[in-house]
Amino acid sequence: MSGKPASRGVPEGESPLPVDDRSVAARLFAIADAFAKPSPASALSLSAIAERAGLPLSTTHRLVAEWVAWGGLTRLDDGRYSLGMRLWELGVQTPTARNLRTIALPYLEDLYESSREHVHLAILDGHDALYLEKLSGHSAVHIISRVGGRLPLHSTGVGLVLLAFAPTDVIQSYLATSLQRFLPQTVTSPEELRKRLAGIRAQGVALMSEEMTSGSSSVAAPIRDRTGQVVAAVSTVTRTADRPSPEQEHAVRLAAHGISRALGYRRAGA
Amino acid sequence: MSGKPASRGVPEGESPLPVDDRSVAARLFAIADAFAKPSPASALSLSAIAERAGLPLSTTHRLVAEWVAWGGLTRLDDGRYSLGMRLWELGVQTPTARNLRTIALPYLEDLYESSREHVHLAILDGHDALYLEKLSGHSAVHIISRVGGRLPLHSTGVGLVLLAFAPTDVIQSYLATSLQRFLPQTVTSPEELRKRLAGIRAQGVALMSEEMTSGSSSVAAPIRDRTGQVVAAVSTVTRTADRPSPEQEHAVRLAAHGISRALGYRRAGA
Repeated sequence: MSGKPASRGVPEGESPLPVDDRSVAARLFAIADAFAKPSPASALSLSAIAERAGLPLSTTHRLVAEWVAWGGLTRLDDGRYSLGMRLWELGVQTPTARNLRTIALPYLEDLYESSREHVHLAILDGHDALYLEKLSGHSAVHIISRVGGRLPLHSTGVGLVLLAFAPTDVIQSYLATSLQRFLPQTVTSPEELRKRLAGIRAQGVALMSEEMTSGSSSVAAPIRDRTGQVVAAVSTVTRTADRPSPEQEHAVRLAAHGISRALGYRRAGA
Repeated sequence: MSGKPASRGVPEGESPLPVDDRSVAARLFAIADAFAKPSPASALSLSAIAERAGLPLSTTHRLVAEWVAWGGLTRLDDGRYSLGMRLWELGVQTPTARNLRTIALPYLEDLYESSREHVHLAILDGHDALYLEKLSGHSAVHIISRVGGRLPLHSTGVGLVLLAFAPTDVIQSYLATSLQRFLPQTVTSPEELRKRLAGIRAQGVALMSEEMTSGSSSVAAPIRDRTGQVVAAVSTVTRTADRPSPEQEHAVRLAAHGISRALGYRRAGA
């Protein structure tokens, strides 16, 4: 621990500023972020929050009390803290998430009924696929996605669709990063990925197999808004053994078209 | 406007404290709360935020900028502000909401498939039913519930169940409040409501018709945790014309039992 800058109150690898340069608001937000970074935590002790937020224990104690008073954090029986319901209440009211989810949900349910496997709705946020919704049956294949979670663009069905239809500069900057290989079949070569994205744009669908989680395959299709811009992607994830059938691909396309229409999209000539 | 205390920086009817007694954290949280109170707003101007939060415009301007920098608020093209995706991301990570929802979702989907009407999952929060999940078909009856929304306990199916199984002091204090009559059939007499709650406890199910929204009826049942305590309620809402059938009531009970079992509940003798 001695070599770490934490004793000077500097968050590890996050901010080069000494803690005193951060505003009260920034320190308060750093406390909430402690539950998301470096990895999601459902409960943290006061000292773990202090370390993750790069704050002295006394400051953390005082600011955590403010969060608790508001309801954004909850103190558990064991003395640790978790994110509180007030945060959830405000969060679900966020217009982007709420509107898109509300409009998409009946279509996602139809898709779920036809597949009985995982159904995903995701948007592009930075260099990640951010999962807005996930419907799962009792016996669906085990995968790591979760509502509010993020997964890479190059190794997930929804991610490939979102990347394929992203602005050119986003594609360039994403391909310039070091792409992680999760499984032997994960495509990490920028050249190969570029060709794949062109194929997805031409086909209007992404097929993915054994590239993120062993044993799972995915079909994903783009959702467009009134202006024709791709704003989200929908997918089903099935066991690789039950490799997506043409019917499954058709069902995903239909769901994507339905949601796009509900968002005001009209295909040229349609 | 002249008679209002807002000019002294005191939020209307909310806090008797002058604004200067509030900490920076409390003022920051008042800005987020502006999007929920007095009524949910998807977008607000700076001056509307200032008025709702009971803060001077200059303070509001500075603190809104801190929210935007963090991602908890987003500045829209028209200059107004809305709640941001960062808030949504943290909110959906809230353990209570996330765990209960994750466990319940497959059962809610089964229930949705059997009914094709609205399916609700709600918890008791203060004197309200707080809606954690809502699944709706394309053609379900129009009702006012929404995920993250709150509705009264005495006029909704899930609310009646949550109230019936609430601690005695919660029931007492709720019945001591003035109960709003939404429709002619809404039960607002404490004495009558007390009898109804006893019936719900005895039957293990609440039936509600034309008490909140014209044209809709509801069947709700309690969800218990490992300790046997009622922690949530599940319901379907159907058109009153298609008044809940015995099959529908059975399906809601089954879903509630399934979720309770998944939470670790074992009925005595089961």
